[in-house]
This record gives sequence, structure tokens and C-alpha cells, in this order.
Amino acid sequence: MESEDELIAQRSPLPGSVVGRLREQLVFVAEVDKLKTVLRQSPLAAADRRENDAEHSWHLALMVSVLAEHSDEPIDVGRTIELVVVHDLIEIYAGDTPLYDDEGRESQQQREEAAADRLFGLLPDDQERRFRELWDEFEARRTPEARFAKAIDRVQPLLLNWLTGGGTWRTPGVTADVVRERKAVIGEASTPLWTAVQELINEGERRGWVAPGA
Amino acid sequence: MESEDELIAQRSPLPGSVVGRLREQLVFVAEVDKLKTVLRQSPLAAADRRENDAEHSWHLALMVSVLAEHSDEPIDVGRTIELVVVHDLIEIYAGDTPLYDDEGRESQQQREEAAADRLFGLLPDDQERRFRELWDEFEARRTPEARFAKAIDRVQPLLLNWLTGGGTWRTPGVTADVVRERKAVIGEASTPLWTAVQELINEGERRGWVAPGA
Repeated sequence: MESEDELIAQRSPLPGSVVGRLREQLVFVAEVDKLKTVLRQSPLAAADRRENDAEHSWHLALMVSVLAEHSDEPIDVGRTIELVVVHDLIEIYAGDTPLYDDEGRESQQQREEAAADRLFGLLPDDQERRFRELWDEFEARRTPEARFAKAIDRVQPLLLNWLTGGGTWRTPGVTADVVRERKAVIGEASTPLWTAVQELINEGERRGWVAPGA
Repeated sequence: MESEDELIAQRSPLPGSVVGRLREQLVFVAEVDKLKTVLRQSPLAAADRRENDAEHSWHLALMVSVLAEHSDEPIDVGRTIELVVVHDLIEIYAGDTPLYDDEGRESQQQREEAAADRLFGLLPDDQERRFRELWDEFEARRTPEARFAKAIDRVQPLLLNWLTGGGTWRTPGVTADVVRERKAVIGEASTPLWTAVQELINEGERRGWVAPGA
């Protein structure tokens, strides 16, 4: 990743004639290009490399559009897509915290709050508040949209693990029961997806793609 | 890119207990992982490599969310985001056709129609129709949402060119007037964005990042 101290827009500043809200917005839009350099643990299914956060966020957006009918509660699909498009932005400064990294997860909230202040602070005040609210809504799972968005965020890497015959399931210390526990939030949003996911985990366990039991 | 003849889901078929619409949808969701391997001409601003279609589509989705207020006509933001999330999917089979590749653009429509038949045909019939309609709407620019989505699709790579001091503006045969002509659709959707874009092109021409004049 690039130096965190320099904004991308500082390297090639916009002409002085671009002013006001639009200037702030374009500085933000330039800065978020960095999300394409934040690597996740998940392998791609289509190529032999790890996935980055921008690719992941796009995949979630498309999955929401395709799978929305499986939400147990009615959801606003457009708003749910906005939630997943925004949800990982703070990782530009806070980095990715893998689902099975318990140590990293302890400091996660504090790092991510600081990152949100810094990144969303580039926007005009009203949009800073709106993006902060979208991120908070996703994290807190207070709404049907946020619960479904979080469920899709748990289904997508599991599907990549399945398609690559293990993926991050092979992380030391991870067992099928650990996977079931970390994926259980899917069941808070979608009974059909949770049923299918449990079948993938069971079959992955049978095939030795994830260590058995507890 | 992976072999086009093999579906990603064929390599590691879903368990037989996952059936019906959900099975078809998950096969589609697995297949679109290939979008992450379709390279565009545009350079990233945040790293020294070319952008892929999945990253690009995510960036457009976020830009729609941030810049929607600059649309000259009222738009449904959620639907506009769906348009940009879907708009490049057909490139999984048809490949990317660069904006300044006149030869490739002649055969583009036929290649893309065949790709749409094949890719969207993986979905249940009602969703095949819906995704086909989203893609057609984007291409035809018949609605305010599609006009704004297309405008953002033209602004984003121009911003990457600006941030990298030239990018695809340096393609042989491209001049500032060619850029202005190819970017003019932005003016059909957003007066403020088109004004800002013209200032970036003018300044890029002054700096020698794009060849002058006609």
C-alpha cells in the first residue's frame, strides 16, 4: 500500500477551478483508490492470488442484487448495496482483520474508528455523517438491510473457500465448529442461505478441507 | 483469464442438497469471480498496475453514492448503483474494449450480446430478464439513472489518468479533442461534472499529458 500520510490527490492536485463540495468529493474518490491495494486472506476462485477489498466489495454488491429474495425480512436492495459498497472503506487505513485472527480482532474497533474519522472527514460534513452512519449501521446489524449485508459478507469468502478446496479454512487452529460459530450471523438474516452454508461446511469437513469438530 | 469453456462452479460442484433457484444463483455468483481477472487499460492511482473490471465497478458504485447530487435530473441512487455493478459483467466473456480502440469497438456489440446470453442465462429466467434489462438500460442511456451511470463510467478512468499524469491519454492517436469527444456524454447527465472534466482535460493538455488539439 502507498504511504498512509499522503493523500493520493496531493500527488496531482486538482485544478484550482474545481472548488467547494465537488473538490472535496473528488479528493475522497481519489483516496479510496487505495482500497484496491488492501489484500484479504481469501483466495480468488478465478485466479491464483488473494482477493483485494475493492473486488470483494463489488462481489458483495452483486450478490445482494442476486440473492435479496432469500432475506427473511423485507429489505431495501439499493440501500443494502450501499452498505456493502462502503463497509470495508475504513480498511484503507485500519487494514484487513481476518475473521480467524483473534488477536487482531481485539484492537480492531479502535483502529477502525480512527480510520473512519480520517477517511470520511475528507467529505463535506453532511456526507461525512451519512457515510459514518452507513458504516455504523453495517457493523451494528440494527436493521434488516445491515443484517443481510453482514450475512452476504460472511457467505462470499466461504464460497471462495469452497471453490478453491479449503482456502482460509486451512488456517491453523480453525475447525469446522469454529467456522460454524463465526458464520452463525448468516442465520440471523436468511434461513435458506444459512442452510446452504451449513451444508457446504459439513461437506468441506467430510472432504478434509477444514479440520473436524471443535 | 481462466478457460471460458469451464464454469468455475464445475471445478468444485455444490453439494446435491443445494437445489433450485439458489443453486442457479450460486453458480452465477461463482462464475462472476472471473470479472476480477479482466484487465482494463486504466492504471490504478494507488499502485503501479492496471485496474481490473471488478475494482472499476466497485469504484463506480461508490462514486454514484458520493456524486449523485450532481445529476442534472433526479435519480434513484440505489438503482443507479445496480446499473454500474452489472454494466461490465459481459466482459467476462467479451473482454474489455478500450475507449480508444476503434477497431475493437466495431465488433463490440455482437460479442457483448453473445456474452450476455451466455452469462445471464445461468440465472433463473426472471433474473436473466432483469439483469439483461439492467445492462440494456445502461447501454441505451434511456433513463436518467443510466445517463448518470454512463457519465460516472466516463469520469472514473479520466480521474485515474489525471492522478497518474496521463495514463491512457498517452495512447497513440489520442488527442485532447478525441478525449473531449469521447467524454461528451458526461454533459448529458451532469453539468457540474462535465465542467470539471473539461478543466482536467484542458490542464492535462497544457501539461503535455495528452497530445494537443484535434
